[in-house]
Amino acid sequence: MTVTDQTATAEVRAVPEWGPAPTTPEAWVERARDVASRLAVDALERDRANQPPYAEVRLLKDSGLVTLLGPTRHGGGGQTWTTALRVVRAVSAGDGSIGQLLGYHYLWAWAARLVGTPEQIEAVEQQATENTWFFGGAVNPRDTDLTIRVEGDELVFSGEKSFSTGGRISDATVLEGVIEGTEDHVFAIVPTDQPGLRFKGDWDSLGQRLTESGGVRIDDVRVPWAAAAGYVETPDGGHVFRPRVYNTLNVPLIQIIFANLYVGIAEGALTTAATYTRERTRAWPYTPDLKQRGSEEFYVLETYGDLRSKLWAAEALAERAATFVEAVNAHPDDVTEQERGEAAVVIAAAKQVAIDVGLEVGTRVFEVTGARASASAVGLDLFWRNIRTHSLHDPVAHKRAEVGRWTLLGEIPEPTWYT
Amino acid sequence: MTVTDQTATAEVRAVPEWGPAPTTPEAWVERARDVASRLAVDALERDRANQPPYAEVRLLKDSGLVTLLGPTRHGGGGQTWTTALRVVRAVSAGDGSIGQLLGYHYLWAWAARLVGTPEQIEAVEQQATENTWFFGGAVNPRDTDLTIRVEGDELVFSGEKSFSTGGRISDATVLEGVIEGTEDHVFAIVPTDQPGLRFKGDWDSLGQRLTESGGVRIDDVRVPWAAAAGYVETPDGGHVFRPRVYNTLNVPLIQIIFANLYVGIAEGALTTAATYTRERTRAWPYTPDLKQRGSEEFYVLETYGDLRSKLWAAEALAERAATFVEAVNAHPDDVTEQERGEAAVVIAAAKQVAIDVGLEVGTRVFEVTGARASASAVGLDLFWRNIRTHSLHDPVAHKRAEVGRWTLLGEIPEPTWYT
Amino acid sequence: MTVTDQTATAEVRAVPEWGPAPTTPEAWVERARDVASRLAVDALERDRANQPPYAEVRLLKDSGLVTLLGPTRHGGGGQTWTTALRVVRAVSAGDGSIGQLLGYHYLWAWAARLVGTPEQIEAVEQQATENTWFFGGAVNPRDTDLTIRVEGDELVFSGEKSFSTGGRISDATVLEGVIEGTEDHVFAIVPTDQPGLRFKGDWDSLGQRLTESGGVRIDDVRVPWAAAAGYVETPDGGHVFRPRVYNTLNVPLIQIIFANLYVGIAEGALTTAATYTRERTRAWPYTPDLKQRGSEEFYVLETYGDLRSKLWAAEALAERAATFVEAVNAHPDDVTEQERGEAAVVIAAAKQVAIDVGLEVGTRVFEVTGARASASAVGLDLFWRNIRTHSLHDPVAHKRAEVGRWTLLGEIPEPTWYT
Amino acid sequence: MTVTDQTATAEVRAVPEWGPAPTTPEAWVERARDVASRLAVDALERDRANQPPYAEVRLLKDSGLVTLLGPTRHGGGGQTWTTALRVVRAVSAGDGSIGQLLGYHYLWAWAARLVGTPEQIEAVEQQATENTWFFGGAVNPRDTDLTIRVEGDELVFSGEKSFSTGGRISDATVLEGVIEGTEDHVFAIVPTDQPGLRFKGDWDSLGQRLTESGGVRIDDVRVPWAAAAGYVETPDGGHVFRPRVYNTLNVPLIQIIFANLYVGIAEGALTTAATYTRERTRAWPYTPDLKQRGSEEFYVLETYGDLRSKLWAAEALAERAATFVEAVNAHPDDVTEQERGEAAVVIAAAKQVAIDVGLEVGTRVFEVTGARASASAVGLDLFWRNIRTHSLHDPVAHKRAEVGRWTLLGEIPEPTWYT
Repeated sequence: MTVTDQTATAEVRAVPEWGPAPTTPEAWVERARDVASRLAVDALERDRANQPPYAEVRLLKDSGLVTLLGPTRHGGGGQTWTTALRVVRAVSAGDGSIGQLLGYHYLWAWAARLVGTPEQIEAVEQQATENTWFFGGAVNPRDTDLTIRVEGDELVFSGEKSFSTGGRISDATVLEGVIEGTEDHVFAIVPTDQPGLRFKGDWDSLGQRLTESGGVRIDDVRVPWAAAAGYVETPDGGHVFRPRVYNTLNVPLIQIIFANLYVGIAEGALTTAATYTRERTRAWPYTPDLKQRGSEEFYVLETYGDLRSKLWAAEALAERAATFVEAVNAHPDDVTEQERGEAAVVIAAAKQVAIDVGLEVGTRVFEVTGARASASAVGLDLFWRNIRTHSLHDPVAHKRAEVGRWTLLGEIPEPTWYT
Repeated sequence: MTVTDQTATAEVRAVPEWGPAPTTPEAWVERARDVASRLAVDALERDRANQPPYAEVRLLKDSGLVTLLGPTRHGGGGQTWTTALRVVRAVSAGDGSIGQLLGYHYLWAWAARLVGTPEQIEAVEQQATENTWFFGGAVNPRDTDLTIRVEGDELVFSGEKSFSTGGRISDATVLEGVIEGTEDHVFAIVPTDQPGLRFKGDWDSLGQRLTESGGVRIDDVRVPWAAAAGYVETPDGGHVFRPRVYNTLNVPLIQIIFANLYVGIAEGALTTAATYTRERTRAWPYTPDLKQRGSEEFYVLETYGDLRSKLWAAEALAERAATFVEAVNAHPDDVTEQERGEAAVVIAAAKQVAIDVGLEVGTRVFEVTGARASASAVGLDLFWRNIRTHSLHDPVAHKRAEVGRWTLLGEIPEPTWYT
Repeated sequence: MTVTDQTATAEVRAVPEWGPAPTTPEAWVERARDVASRLAVDALERDRANQPPYAEVRLLKDSGLVTLLGPTRHGGGGQTWTTALRVVRAVSAGDGSIGQLLGYHYLWAWAARLVGTPEQIEAVEQQATENTWFFGGAVNPRDTDLTIRVEGDELVFSGEKSFSTGGRISDATVLEGVIEGTEDHVFAIVPTDQPGLRFKGDWDSLGQRLTESGGVRIDDVRVPWAAAAGYVETPDGGHVFRPRVYNTLNVPLIQIIFANLYVGIAEGALTTAATYTRERTRAWPYTPDLKQRGSEEFYVLETYGDLRSKLWAAEALAERAATFVEAVNAHPDDVTEQERGEAAVVIAAAKQVAIDVGLEVGTRVFEVTGARASASAVGLDLFWRNIRTHSLHDPVAHKRAEVGRWTLLGEIPEPTWYT
Repeated sequence: MTVTDQTATAEVRAVPEWGPAPTTPEAWVERARDVASRLAVDALERDRANQPPYAEVRLLKDSGLVTLLGPTRHGGGGQTWTTALRVVRAVSAGDGSIGQLLGYHYLWAWAARLVGTPEQIEAVEQQATENTWFFGGAVNPRDTDLTIRVEGDELVFSGEKSFSTGGRISDATVLEGVIEGTEDHVFAIVPTDQPGLRFKGDWDSLGQRLTESGGVRIDDVRVPWAAAAGYVETPDGGHVFRPRVYNTLNVPLIQIIFANLYVGIAEGALTTAATYTRERTRAWPYTPDLKQRGSEEFYVLETYGDLRSKLWAAEALAERAATFVEAVNAHPDDVTEQERGEAAVVIAAAKQVAIDVGLEVGTRVFEVTGARASASAVGLDLFWRNIRTHSLHDPVAHKRAEVGRWTLLGEIPEPTWYT
């Protein structure tokens, strides 16, 4: 598979020599912070330019973050999901779109692990890690499923998806469809750069603008049966899928990515605002309780303290939720429905707290920067726009109800595309 | 004074025959709603085009709203501030920028009444009403004052202001400066279309983008002493300003305009969102408690009810605050500091409630419209942007403290440029 | 009907000469404030003593408030519901329980107007006003209906109600039941002091403790057919009820009483707290931004301002809702379902805002009084307890949904016992 | 020192054989949950009886929790503060007062470690652990310091403290005073049961009623110089105190105890409410969207989910804060001011989130249980009362400002009695 030609279209600072890959979780997070600080420099300009983030993905690749979860024997980082999620959070603080792309990539790169056979897992991990594939996915479940024709030894996917995060900037795309005349769902990884995949480039949204989340038309994309994730051949030449609870972990995983994405973006908002307040916010002169600088005003300090505290709480819960992911990842073959369900509940809780806090941070930072911070040149709205946009992915009210159903009735959510 | 030539630069629907001016408060508000519905059609496109709102001001003039407060004997509407504020609210529901322009216009058109001598009041009201002047103001108090040289019988203003709402689209501009070597402040109304006023057109902000609030350079703008608002000639040929409490009512007036602006914008958000929800929001399929349409989901109904209730409360308080304005307007010559102070406190309260509720409405409407409502084509963020931007005008924390100081200690705010 | 013997059981200050009844709305509210200030003196002690409020009802009678709505020709105040609601609010600021009793009394005293025939209305109003009846009601709709046997010309009520506000301290009790073998509901007013009514005195709740809201056993309480509210005799000697929309106004009326009750209690909380803060709250010494007194701390001022503003907004909406009641009361015979529905929606909105704000005030006042204000001797929790208790009357979530259904879909609530 | 005679005054279920002490952190927390469930049975009755919690402290001792932090060589549990804090949280879920007593005990039992010399530490730990001392403290810093006379080899404490948590039910009391004519502060542990300590038993507050937090009169309580914590004899026979940063860790420790106390109480509220909702809350019949049980109502599920999520976040942050305590405890002799300051900031954040969430849980649980849950017999207000009372210990606004000062300016709080 040939990596799509990537020409930077917006200003990402020239990639330096990154040196050897980090070897500890802390160093990986530090690396992610480094990436984030480079992205932050022109995140606003790139948001407005709204071009496919080729250069940004190049940065993710060069910095090593893309293969953080890949096996060390193939040159990957061999890190845990806990580290991956922290990395998503750190990158999102610099650029929410790129944090999202990286998070989705981690999930889709993990798809083989979730659903594949041991052979498929080995093959995908080797190829993806060695070639630094960046993954996207054309799997939006609220669209009609893609249809799959079986032609001899091949599965032929066709159809359309409204949203396909990663789109043009990915190397590999995960497809999902249903075999005609059956109810058999099939996941498969295909090269992005092929005529059968036509990305519309029509993602134009309030926030998360550089995520390449536009629609895609799939026409006769061919996949060998051997690449149908999780299917094994039966003695009579048929193909059968072996279900296990772990297969359904994609939803909790993507949801915990969301939580970390929101926390990360909010972190970016708080940091950006604090710099502004320190450097530019004036004290308010029309009050009996005069201060010298905006940063001495009691309400300013109190607001920063309030937002900081809440955001730490959201982050701490996201971290806690990650321990459930680790517990499940430790024994993928015999995850119980209860384990999966409880992980999903804690993750849902982390997500909703992250949304609440993220929106509050995104809105209230303006109150501690002041009127001139509303100038377009400042662009402090980027954070609110990013969280507001992505947090609509699925209704938070239903996530709350999901957590409530468990809290009140002890019922775990039934696995669906969103629970 | 020649009205600036106004050529429509963005799409406002062609102005129809408006027929005779309304004669009752209700009819004026109805007229404002009509104006708002025309503005709402392309408010988003015009926000993005970010052009001076010549056509929009034309609409305000044609519809009669601009002279609503003008004396009937000069062809004005002869309405009260209560009606003017409702009109600002109604227009703001369709287009927050234009609502702001209209509100500021009402204040500056009223400046003569606040500060002027009886002769000045009569002169300004006649001219402004008969010629349908639209007012702007170059008075941002956080900049250095303009300086005024006295040259014979003329006052010559020079200096710079960072913000001058109304700017190029106004017919008349209110200036404020300090006479060199004194502490005498002078207000004066001057024609906008003169070489001494150079508008920078540099207003580019997150919201309220069509308010022409950019900076202005004032060079040697000449005003006869007779036009120095509130100054009378002394027997020895000097000029002396006669202070009264009513002079300081500009701040309460502008603040109550703000409150109505925010309530109006939030009203627009709620209405726009409700239409979207009814027409486009799908029910969430992944729940045991399935509905047919998004508008049947309990959380959707509850959220609309919550926002509607809070917004009604904000509006009711804004209306209550207006009764204080009317009380003061009923006897401008002998307003007491206590009256003025209590009006200011209730208005501050109305403003802060309007901000709280407005920001909440602007953020939460997305939760009841759904993910696709974050598309740029929908532009549902316009309302949040508009409220978020303007509500930073002065720190709401200090307004809260102002109300608190009265509540706890019975102290009224000392009149300043912001209290 | 003999007025129940009333012996004061707790300390209400001796009743002075009240002088002639007020004649203006303002004077009635002033009278109510006077009553409130007397009640406030020992509201906490009486709350703890939890005795039937005989003396308190005596105070309401002596002050004239009980007959405020009664026709002037019978010695009543002839006031509007707007005034009655303000009076409920004012009294509730001094003692939430007594405010509730008064509000319920107004509703039950109005029951004849809602449902009765013209003759019944005249009879009840004369008797009730001349004799200063205090009303209670045994009508909790979530219990089974009372059963009514028809015995000749009499209706005989029997059954049980869990809650009967007013109970022992009332002079007249409103009963509601269903005639055996039919679905005919009958309201009737009966003397409280009769053997067939046995009040259990079992009301022991977190708040609103002096409302005499315990259960009641009704055994063979006899009422002549002529007293069956709204029933007229048919030519064949039967009885038929004439429905009209106005009959169902009891629910909006009681709900708007609730809104004013909550606002009033919150007002009491704010006033009580402010006195405490001024007189006793110390500044916090462990901060770089030292103050001399607690009342100078920025967060204290800001919090009072925030609570004051929100509470004014809640009050303003309650006032606005009252205008809908007046509109309906102006033509009881031809109220439309739409009018009734819209009144109910605005009232529901006012109630939910009052609850939100009331709970917030009740909780946050502690933050501006300080640790020692949690002493039992201070009793600052009384307000939170009162609002928390009564605001559970019916689920506020469903009220929100009701307002939301109207906002989003234009649907008015179908009249039930709670909507 | 003789353990005070303890006679149970309220109903705590008979103490069973507890068996051997737990050996793992998990088992200790499980033990605490067991204790909590015993306390929960009659927490409400005991709260109302308001008697000194002798029996409750007996339970804490019998269960082994009291010596959880004591060295294993003396028979203690040898556990970390992380475990101690979890135990406080778990006990608080059953009875907030007893959770507070236990938490304060842990701190005062740790006082020797914070301030003492190695010899003092060894002596106190041995005695306290072997004899299962329960600690109280008469150290309220907002009162005047106790005065200390030096009489030969003895220090003689006298004075008065308004609050002395632990009071009569403790075995040992920590005193703090200033040596007359100097600014030397001295901490010392003394037997509670002595004539010089007279507890007033005057703690009567809204919540946390069983904490024995009344005032105490100290008259001539004698302590040998050798027991003056942290003082060493100088060659010339004088005494000198050796300061180190770790000495000031008492404030962060007590503050993190608070955070866990609030989270624990809120946990108790949520659990208690959920049981009530499941067993007793009826569905609301007056709605188009009828349910069979209260626990099926969407708003009920959503509210439980919202509260559960937020409370998990508060708990997760409290856990995170504990890691800072462990880090500091790992090297008490060379803790830096920066380390101490950052720990204090995160702990302050954890506390304020716990307060916010705790109050919200305490208030909103009523909304999902319904009107009858306001009955005194249910007593669901206990949780709100407990959190509301204790969370006033020091103004949360200043804690927010403290976190804000660090977030915005990087400044750590200067150690005081409250920061």
